Amino acid sequence: MAIAEVTVIPIGTGDTSLSGYVAEMQRILEQRSGAIRYQLTPMSTILEGDLAELLETIRQLHESPFAAGAGRVSTSIKIDDRRDRPSSMEQKMRSVAEKLQQSSPDDSRS
Amino acid sequence: MAIAEVTVIPIGTGDTSLSGYVAEMQRILEQRSGAIRYQLTPMSTILEGDLAELLETIRQLHESPFAAGAGRVSTSIKIDDRRDRPSSMEQKMRSVAEKLQQSSPDDSRS
Amino acid sequence: MAIAEVTVIPIGTGDTSLSGYVAEMQRILEQRSGAIRYQLTPMSTILEGDLAELLETIRQLHESPFAAGAGRVSTSIKIDDRRDRPSSMEQKMRSVAEKLQQSSPDDSRS
Amino acid sequence: MAIAEVTVIPIGTGDTSLSGYVAEMQRILEQRSGAIRYQLTPMSTILEGDLAELLETIRQLHESPFAAGAGRVSTSIKIDDRRDRPSSMEQKMRSVAEKLQQSSPDDSRS
Repeated sequence: MAIAEVTVIPIGTGDTSLSGYVAEMQRILEQRSGAIRYQLTPMSTILEGDLAELLETIRQLHESPFAAGAGRVSTSIKIDDRRDRPSSMEQKMRSVAEKLQQSSPDDSRS
Repeated sequence: MAIAEVTVIPIGTGDTSLSGYVAEMQRILEQRSGAIRYQLTPMSTILEGDLAELLETIRQLHESPFAAGAGRVSTSIKIDDRRDRPSSMEQKMRSVAEKLQQSSPDDSRS
Repeated sequence: MAIAEVTVIPIGTGDTSLSGYVAEMQRILEQRSGAIRYQLTPMSTILEGDLAELLETIRQLHESPFAAGAGRVSTSIKIDDRRDRPSSMEQKMRSVAEKLQQSSPDDSRS
Repeated sequence: MAIAEVTVIPIGTGDTSLSGYVAEMQRILEQRSGAIRYQLTPMSTILEGDLAELLETIRQLHESPFAAGAGRVSTSIKIDDRRDRPSSMEQKMRSVAEKLQQSSPDDSRS
């Protein structure tokens, strides 16, 4: 399972708002929710799943603004692929929380 | 107010785990929480605040793995800066939710 | 034809040098040079070709550090896909050069 | 000396062409060429210099589309900062070329 972060920006649309495009991407993700898990953040969409499924999903997300009339699209992707042990969106958050717990000033004082 | 997404990766540390570095970044952010707001995601840290404050915070986050012994650091940043109207992490999430609401199949049926 | 920029970083390798991994990526690209065009820069590799070919190439580049023993890989991708008119790596450079020419101080003086 | 890669995208401009914005960024870089070195690629601008100078330059590049009327700007940055030994744009290219030379089929045959 790999985790990816995706941001899709249509260029030249004449409108500074992008939320309509992001909403359309959420609809696409809903239809693919059997193959991948996803989470919207204020800056991007995070996907988790098999690498081939992630790339196919990203391709569909990248296509969506064109279907809505955009003439140019800039898509940024970051893939975090860990194969030495299982990883997930939740596991990554948990690991950071545990590290913060272990080394908190209160802990070291006690 | 601008919003930024930051990922800091130490290179050559000999350990595939990065959570200790991310935890240290969270501690730095806590100390700057008067100047900026922040949110951890499974793939990056999102910051909100004045552009100059964001860049200074990003500089500190980028420095932190060096302080922990790293010899090389790769830092990715994406800045979303909207000046035609107020923006925030919550506002961006709300706009997408509203768009999803407006055009849901259930709505169009009624 | 789309243009993409790719950076592949192995994590936890114990070596701050990445040039061996980048060289291996160049060898993979050479074998795919019938399907895509590419150019190495000091910060990433730029690819040009059909979107499906680009994504398949990126998948292979992302896999290459695992084949060399890495346990975790972080891959960053930016896709610039323009469909309102033909685009290429050279065309993009030429457009900027023309704009610089048009508005140079010498031109406006004459 | 750190090396950074920057892409600045104005959002909502109504024009799919970005070369005018990129040209303006080149003019800004020319004026800062005492403090930093730079190189345009088909996908971004690469900067080399002291980290503080890089961040100040990136701030100016990010501001430039606003000065030209844009209401929203998305700026992507990747910083590669190596402190275990000297690095430069040329050195990075040279290291890859050397690795390709060392392991070429012709070499292994002899």
